Amino acid sequence: MRNKRDVYLDDRPWEEALAGFLEHLTAKGSLSPGAAEEISVEQALGRVTAEPIFAINSSPHYNASAMDGIAVDSALTFGASDASPKRIQLGEKAQVVDTGDPIPAGCDAVIMIEDVHFVEDEIFEITSAAAPWQHVRAIGEDVIATEMILPANHRIRPMDIGGILAGGVTRVKVHPKPKVALLPTGTELVQPGVDLKPGDIVEYNTRVFGALVESWGGEALRWPITVDNWEKLKDSLLQAVEQADIVVINAGSSAGREDFTAELIRELGTVLTHGAAIKPGKPVILGEIMGKPVIGVPGYPVSAYLTMELFVRPVVYQKLGSVPPQPQTTEAIISRKMPSPMGVEEFIRVKMGQVGEKIIATPISRGAGVIMSLVRADGILRIPRLSEGFRAGETVKVELMRPLEEVRQTTVVIGSHDMALDILANHLRRRFPEASLSSANVGSLGGLSAIKRGECHLAGTHLLDEDTGDYNISYIQRLLGDRPVVLLNLVYRQQGLMVAKGNPLKIKGLEDLAREGMRFINRQRGAGTRILLDYRLKQLGINPDNIYGYNREEYTHMAVAAAVASGAADAGLGILAAANALDLDFVPVVEERYDLCIPGEYWDTPYIQRLLEVIATKEFRQQVEALGGYDLRDCGKVMYRQGV
Amino acid sequence: MRNKRDVYLDDRPWEEALAGFLEHLTAKGSLSPGAAEEISVEQALGRVTAEPIFAINSSPHYNASAMDGIAVDSALTFGASDASPKRIQLGEKAQVVDTGDPIPAGCDAVIMIEDVHFVEDEIFEITSAAAPWQHVRAIGEDVIATEMILPANHRIRPMDIGGILAGGVTRVKVHPKPKVALLPTGTELVQPGVDLKPGDIVEYNTRVFGALVESWGGEALRWPITVDNWEKLKDSLLQAVEQADIVVINAGSSAGREDFTAELIRELGTVLTHGAAIKPGKPVILGEIMGKPVIGVPGYPVSAYLTMELFVRPVVYQKLGSVPPQPQTTEAIISRKMPSPMGVEEFIRVKMGQVGEKIIATPISRGAGVIMSLVRADGILRIPRLSEGFRAGETVKVELMRPLEEVRQTTVVIGSHDMALDILANHLRRRFPEASLSSANVGSLGGLSAIKRGECHLAGTHLLDEDTGDYNISYIQRLLGDRPVVLLNLVYRQQGLMVAKGNPLKIKGLEDLAREGMRFINRQRGAGTRILLDYRLKQLGINPDNIYGYNREEYTHMAVAAAVASGAADAGLGILAAANALDLDFVPVVEERYDLCIPGEYWDTPYIQRLLEVIATKEFRQQVEALGGYDLRDCGKVMYRQGV
Repeated sequence: MRNKRDVYLDDRPWEEALAGFLEHLTAKGSLSPGAAEEISVEQALGRVTAEPIFAINSSPHYNASAMDGIAVDSALTFGASDASPKRIQLGEKAQVVDTGDPIPAGCDAVIMIEDVHFVEDEIFEITSAAAPWQHVRAIGEDVIATEMILPANHRIRPMDIGGILAGGVTRVKVHPKPKVALLPTGTELVQPGVDLKPGDIVEYNTRVFGALVESWGGEALRWPITVDNWEKLKDSLLQAVEQADIVVINAGSSAGREDFTAELIRELGTVLTHGAAIKPGKPVILGEIMGKPVIGVPGYPVSAYLTMELFVRPVVYQKLGSVPPQPQTTEAIISRKMPSPMGVEEFIRVKMGQVGEKIIATPISRGAGVIMSLVRADGILRIPRLSEGFRAGETVKVELMRPLEEVRQTTVVIGSHDMALDILANHLRRRFPEASLSSANVGSLGGLSAIKRGECHLAGTHLLDEDTGDYNISYIQRLLGDRPVVLLNLVYRQQGLMVAKGNPLKIKGLEDLAREGMRFINRQRGAGTRILLDYRLKQLGINPDNIYGYNREEYTHMAVAAAVASGAADAGLGILAAANALDLDFVPVVEERYDLCIPGEYWDTPYIQRLLEVIATKEFRQQVEALGGYDLRDCGKVMYRQGV
Repeated sequence: MRNKRDVYLDDRPWEEALAGFLEHLTAKGSLSPGAAEEISVEQALGRVTAEPIFAINSSPHYNASAMDGIAVDSALTFGASDASPKRIQLGEKAQVVDTGDPIPAGCDAVIMIEDVHFVEDEIFEITSAAAPWQHVRAIGEDVIATEMILPANHRIRPMDIGGILAGGVTRVKVHPKPKVALLPTGTELVQPGVDLKPGDIVEYNTRVFGALVESWGGEALRWPITVDNWEKLKDSLLQAVEQADIVVINAGSSAGREDFTAELIRELGTVLTHGAAIKPGKPVILGEIMGKPVIGVPGYPVSAYLTMELFVRPVVYQKLGSVPPQPQTTEAIISRKMPSPMGVEEFIRVKMGQVGEKIIATPISRGAGVIMSLVRADGILRIPRLSEGFRAGETVKVELMRPLEEVRQTTVVIGSHDMALDILANHLRRRFPEASLSSANVGSLGGLSAIKRGECHLAGTHLLDEDTGDYNISYIQRLLGDRPVVLLNLVYRQQGLMVAKGNPLKIKGLEDLAREGMRFINRQRGAGTRILLDYRLKQLGINPDNIYGYNREEYTHMAVAAAVASGAADAGLGILAAANALDLDFVPVVEERYDLCIPGEYWDTPYIQRLLEVIATKEFRQQVEALGGYDLRDCGKVMYRQGV
């Protein structure tokens, strides 16, 4: 067993590490584009010019009529007026032309067809004179031979193709696409689609990298998986250095047992940086072997994605003679406190939505292993190295991961989780392609608090009033005072205990939770399910202290189900749909009501009205019912309203 | 000869025409995506999901260590503290794990390797207890089996590929790429690359359309050129309707002699709109044949581009279940008056740059035939249908055609034209990939006025002082008062008469311009060349009224050269480089000085300092000298400064 636990990681600001890296590579000549490729203009979309493109011919290459009409010698028309119209006979100095036709010799102007009146077959009348050169597109009006159409290092757009062809150029010299070798390494990696054993990790990072490289204008060369073996990794690396312009090694960049990437790069070349002051992505390696940039990218998918963006993207763009475009940004109000350690630049994925006049940003999982945090993110919030984070309500700058216009069209729902919301999100997008639904799961009370703070368009809530047996209304009155709201039912649903398939512990109800050896998994404080549990436990006279795992909290039904499915817990309270999804048994405990609480000011906006339209469709209802455990008898019905 | 001069064009607002078109197509079912294609995830970048993607497995699919360290039964660690460290022996309930390893049965937490101290080979010591589930990635932490990873109608991005593969999905259903048939029509059209005769028009529009369609996510099918023949066009059209989802006919949409596209569509199907209240692009045709959208796009390249964007793009996106992204916009100050007729929405191409705190937008050619106006544009300014245009200095909203960041990095030069500026622009971009040079040619006086109005970073000027024989300084003093400026020499250059090859009229100097039958072409008032001409004419005692063409003005040296090359004029005053470029003869008249006038406040900014660095390079100087007629003896030398 190699022991490299004492590997020391640098802690450099990433800009400094990148600048040093680029400087080193520039000195080695590694960032110059390769020899230019000559390609057909029609293939050139998105490619980058290797040299300026000069026009070979002018366009138009002759004096052309700019109108349908009659080309004339303007001298013939002088003196024509309403008072004294002039008659002209078609002939050498008055010829019918269409747009684009050459101006005949002897003519120097065009009269629009609308302005002539034929009095005989060959004789027309005009009531105003033609100025010399009127309605004539002079030679070179668009492009003049020898003029520069595009400079070097220009990424070719659709209109550029027109300009180039107008200038008579049909083949162009472009920079070759930088070849980026992507080396997945790790004995634990398996290819997508195989049956998974515990400990297997699906190798998808290099697929994501490949798509990134392609979108930047590079060419991705995906290598086979290399196991954690010094000689094999060395062979792969040397091969990659030989065949590619840039080499990315995925994983093997932290300080773990089999992480010898940095040592290997050092043996074959130079390590410039191992470790940057970023989170996630800290253990990145920036190195160089035989003049080729070699980047060690950490294994966790979010770390990997961010280090690709920070360190590989600028190298690819430099090899194309250009700089990466700046991200679009927006100002947003951060909805929760977001502390961050000093000395590290942190990259937080956020969901966003426009609520009233403000764009609200809500942080999502910080886990570097959660690729879905990137899939779900609307933007990335950077917490600077010398900051300790942000206070709730602070205005921050967010880099957009989808267009601001889309963010603005997003209905933001915060509160309790229900799978019907996923189905709603999907049908919403089908029916209204411009719209989307963004949901943050913080429990029912959290949702009502979010309404109070003006952070969402609606909240999903299923809060039982222990005195009246009714749902939500007393909580709304207590938490939101007389603020105008509409409470709309979405579903009734079964809550019950999710237990392992076959119910091996023979759990019959909540009474069994206090049994010796039983391991429970709970929902977080404030969640409607948690309140329901506490209410029932009290009724049954069960002391929560006697339930092992009562304090272990998960934030969604599915997370609870997953804990049971994995054997980490024996039972958890949740909905049938979640149990079904993970093939668990389900012991019904109660039917409960799940409502949507909508502030009055949003009721008449598209954010809500689009949802109402979708909720009313047969397709939505059928798909929810098919999940099982749902009753839609009051779906879309207003259960309560105040001040609206 | 068919006579359709009386074809009546509609004048509908384009939004209304588009809405009617989409409504008609929706009713016909023409906008639904075709049958979904199943493709590998690795091929899916940029494709649009045809149905939601649900996870097949959870990720992780087992409880995994989130750290390199030791997996333990947390109960073993309780009570450990600095005061009373705890020793634990490796074994079933304390096993070394790497990040990603499964948590062994019997263990429920991981202690980071940094927090353990091995006292013997198999015995380690800890000084704090492990909380249950610490540093454990629970099953489904990232993706939970059955959860929705992506909704339908979602365009797949690099990170989505990671999310999909993490959920165990390797093949996805996507909408087919809408097939767009592109039919170039017109007897005058020739393919790029052939020798051009007068009247030939190079068919490049469908190449531009193809690139647009591709960039929207469609598939372009380019048809051969069809001549203006009713039966042939009908055959092509029927074939296209059969093979494609969307048909674009280029040209044949105006009301000219051979323009029977609208009539043909009407014979085979329906014409919904012929003519929209837009400029350029008015004669667009929106029709439908056998349920397929058929769009007649005007022939002028700018009209064609805009109508593709306005009418074809939304159809392609709708066929992909989505809506086109909104353009990025910026506020800008318009530098010149921009009148526009009521009743028409006009689309003006503008150049932009940041001058001081403001973004300045300067309109470029309005000609619908000038594709270079799109190539050169930084943005498009829309003048609404019910507006009569904008006043100079008004704040307007501009749709960006290149990123705002690039616009901000652009050095804006307004004033007299010199080819050395093109070479400067190219070398600037080579040396500073983030930078660019934008030049607007309005003559020397126009440049100094632009400085006065704060519209540019520098002006190119060659204004002769008729009293002193010196250049520029007296004009600066008169026009800019005591405003701080630096006057820097760029080049000395030959001005002379450009005449046809071989000088058939034996022109020897300015004296010959007043000769009977001589046709001159002049520069615009305020241009340095014009001032030089007037000065010399006065010295020579020649009355400008005796020069035929004295009042016909062009705005650049190359435009004057082109007029001579085309035979539209016999002589024009200009620089040798322009004459050489179009293979004209050149009769030298005088050497003149061409300077750059730089306001003091920009001298120390990158806008200017980058130029100075480029001007100093050997490559720049050699390339300018190679043009001929230039002397760089004072290039980069400060000729005058005031207040700096």
